[in-house]
Amino acid sequence: MNPVFSLPVRVYYEDTDAGGVVYHANYLRFMERARSEWLTHLGLEHADLARDHALLFVVRSALLDFLRPARLADRLTVDLRIVQMRRSSMVFAQHVLREDECLCRGEVVIVAVGASTFKPCGIPAAVQHLLGPWLPAVPTE
Amino acid sequence: MNPVFSLPVRVYYEDTDAGGVVYHANYLRFMERARSEWLTHLGLEHADLARDHALLFVVRSALLDFLRPARLADRLTVDLRIVQMRRSSMVFAQHVLREDECLCRGEVVIVAVGASTFKPCGIPAAVQHLLGPWLPAVPTE
Amino acid sequence: MNPVFSLPVRVYYEDTDAGGVVYHANYLRFMERARSEWLTHLGLEHADLARDHALLFVVRSALLDFLRPARLADRLTVDLRIVQMRRSSMVFAQHVLREDECLCRGEVVIVAVGASTFKPCGIPAAVQHLLGPWLPAVPTE
Amino acid sequence: MNPVFSLPVRVYYEDTDAGGVVYHANYLRFMERARSEWLTHLGLEHADLARDHALLFVVRSALLDFLRPARLADRLTVDLRIVQMRRSSMVFAQHVLREDECLCRGEVVIVAVGASTFKPCGIPAAVQHLLGPWLPAVPTE
Repeated sequence: MNPVFSLPVRVYYEDTDAGGVVYHANYLRFMERARSEWLTHLGLEHADLARDHALLFVVRSALLDFLRPARLADRLTVDLRIVQMRRSSMVFAQHVLREDECLCRGEVVIVAVGASTFKPCGIPAAVQHLLGPWLPAVPTE
Repeated sequence: MNPVFSLPVRVYYEDTDAGGVVYHANYLRFMERARSEWLTHLGLEHADLARDHALLFVVRSALLDFLRPARLADRLTVDLRIVQMRRSSMVFAQHVLREDECLCRGEVVIVAVGASTFKPCGIPAAVQHLLGPWLPAVPTE
Repeated sequence: MNPVFSLPVRVYYEDTDAGGVVYHANYLRFMERARSEWLTHLGLEHADLARDHALLFVVRSALLDFLRPARLADRLTVDLRIVQMRRSSMVFAQHVLREDECLCRGEVVIVAVGASTFKPCGIPAAVQHLLGPWLPAVPTE
Repeated sequence: MNPVFSLPVRVYYEDTDAGGVVYHANYLRFMERARSEWLTHLGLEHADLARDHALLFVVRSALLDFLRPARLADRLTVDLRIVQMRRSSMVFAQHVLREDECLCRGEVVIVAVGASTFKPCGIPAAVQHLLGPWLPAVPTE
């Protein structure tokens, strides 16, 4: 299994709605926070990617399953692992957990685009090198 | 084809991010605004559903394709149509458009849950009746 | 009295919190929507100000009184009028109303800054000209 | 001087806007996060206040000075101290800092209200007791 990165997230009033639970769109925010902290952990900041590689990572698609509601003051964990790597994109599996209970599950496809063109571009070798340890193992025969 | 409901949405600073475009999670907000205005249009308010039927409509899953970025001050249209109806859930196809250009496409599954239990419950007959004209036509042979 | 600009705003789930009311920070968003639509009404878009005048209008300070809570599905009106004009800044009085009832009152100071420097700069004469009809009348003796 | 409570906050894409900086309303969110974590630190959760005391703390007014922009990936500190205590309200002085630099300064008045009435009510003695160590010292003559 490939490694998992985790970020603790606390639920504040701003995250909830009048249903008394976390507003559904905010799980996407939580997942993005985890991906951003993971990039920082790799030594890759969005600003560096833009400056050094004229590159933005943008969300190309997302599939979200909202399984159970998170509530005010909950202490959540948001994780990620890479399940697929392509020339200019990565597929992340992500979970928002309260202890062992999965509240929201996501599959998020991130694509590298030119910072001004917003057109897909290959992920630079230097970045790919840093991603190496996070890639799913290729089964050997 | 079943009918389409549309809502105009303007992009403000609050909707954008430092990439200069609409923050991806906010397309889910735009889609929810369209569903809420459509309920109002049907004579169904969230508050009425809660009071009269002890019912909440919650998002069970969402599949989003982010095709092109929306930008500050864009005038968008957010549409919806029902593509499937089940006992306690509905599947919506939704688009966020800038003129004829589709910027984001979503498939959103909404489920009726008890307002306090958050457990799925059947959509009441009175509500189903109002939804009738919006359902996909059943092909006749 | 100087003229008032008004914008209708509907309250959606995204605007509310687990207290069942509009989250306090979101009144600042509503006020900014009114100022943005007013600039559009004047023929001034943020993007044009940036491109033609290398200018951003940023919020320098805000004083907010939260008088009564707005709730889900409320139909609000957000208004603005200019109460003071200086070389590089404007003071707006703003209200968020539900019918005749004032829910939130704000005084917002906007300053013109260089788009890259973020340093205050004079409001260009062409922009001042457009603002003219919105300025408070100078009392004559 | 009375004690200061501090919370680290990281800036993510969700917090920024197309101006490339943190959207002004989000400083109010950061300040609320600090107040919520401080209540937790005192052993007071919003949910407990609602259940045990039928009490909500709501924001009555806020005065904000936006001094310098925070940017994507900044590591901020949000602090608070109580500068005044009344029967049913508290006045907080708050700062959002990047290292030693103050980016935003706020004075936020919080009032205790009945959870269903939203009318001001006295802060219960048990809560006042926990707040004691955080109150400004009364000067002795």
